Amino acid sequence: MATGVAGPEIEKLIQLLARLPGLGPRSARRAALHLIKKREALMAPLAGALQVAMDKIEVCKTCGNIDTHNPCTICTDPRRDPSIIVVVADVSDLWALERATATTGRYHVLGATLSPLDGVGPDDLTIDALVTRAHAAEVTEIILALNATVDGQTTAHYITDLLTEAGVKVTRLAHGVPVGGELDYLDEGTLSAAMRQRTLF
Amino acid sequence: MATGVAGPEIEKLIQLLARLPGLGPRSARRAALHLIKKREALMAPLAGALQVAMDKIEVCKTCGNIDTHNPCTICTDPRRDPSIIVVVADVSDLWALERATATTGRYHVLGATLSPLDGVGPDDLTIDALVTRAHAAEVTEIILALNATVDGQTTAHYITDLLTEAGVKVTRLAHGVPVGGELDYLDEGTLSAAMRQRTLF
Repeated sequence: MATGVAGPEIEKLIQLLARLPGLGPRSARRAALHLIKKREALMAPLAGALQVAMDKIEVCKTCGNIDTHNPCTICTDPRRDPSIIVVVADVSDLWALERATATTGRYHVLGATLSPLDGVGPDDLTIDALVTRAHAAEVTEIILALNATVDGQTTAHYITDLLTEAGVKVTRLAHGVPVGGELDYLDEGTLSAAMRQRTLF
Repeated sequence: MATGVAGPEIEKLIQLLARLPGLGPRSARRAALHLIKKREALMAPLAGALQVAMDKIEVCKTCGNIDTHNPCTICTDPRRDPSIIVVVADVSDLWALERATATTGRYHVLGATLSPLDGVGPDDLTIDALVTRAHAAEVTEIILALNATVDGQTTAHYITDLLTEAGVKVTRLAHGVPVGGELDYLDEGTLSAAMRQRTLF
């Protein structure tokens, strides 16, 4: 990829951009050129925003969220229900739930899901911290908002077993028809789950 | 897009990343999260590379190339043939030709192609500078390496007309079958051009 055509400084920039998810070598070159052309309008602000992020962003010591405050804004928000902990695999899942304003509870970011094939075991996740938090007096419900994949469900079962003695209710997200989804395109597992968990109209 | 979920600093970073070609709002979020997770391995180097690019990269006053030297490395390279000027629309085209080591000549970057529909006229391009360069004694050939599109060919004709009195040979890239291309998938225009411009085997 790096043919040295554009000088080492630009090649370095292209190589770093190519490591972002969603950008390959070709689109990284386009992105670098775009940045160089929009020097004042885009490159300078982006360099600044990265520096600010470098300086200010931390991982919340309570929940694992990413924020400029530690503990994070959600953990310290008095309007959030301290009795509910929503367990997610990744910060991106937390962001998705927040965009949907799906919960008034607080979060716990595991960092990943258990995956024997990828060598991800319980010690790689923040499960111990979750169990500790679940034993706190004010916590009454743990909502497992994990992917409906094999790894996600394995993780959910593993955590559920560990939480039996914490005296909390452990729930998980409903399966069902996505809003706007067409039945014809849904798999059988989703359809039968949606039928079993049908609700009153 | 910006729902304020992740704090203003992260949202700002996401918004700037989303302005890169090839990244939409969703992939910009993924890229931002990836950067934050790879703080030392990726975010710090990228912030540094952008700062270096900000400080050092200039537009070559001779040819319009982008480089940390001005005039650029190609314009000052004594091994490059000063009798040939390869005219390209954009720096990305220059990079593509350099990757292919397609020429030993020097370049002239127009900045764009003529496009009446987009309001791009001759004054928006570096055509005057090209005509001046073409009159230099050592220049004998101008190769128009422009896109084989309507705008590219319009620009090629316009430049050719202006260069008639410069006493230089004006050439353009051959049309033909791409290396590795299958005839069955080529358009008729390319096929008949390839047939007309056939070469001895």
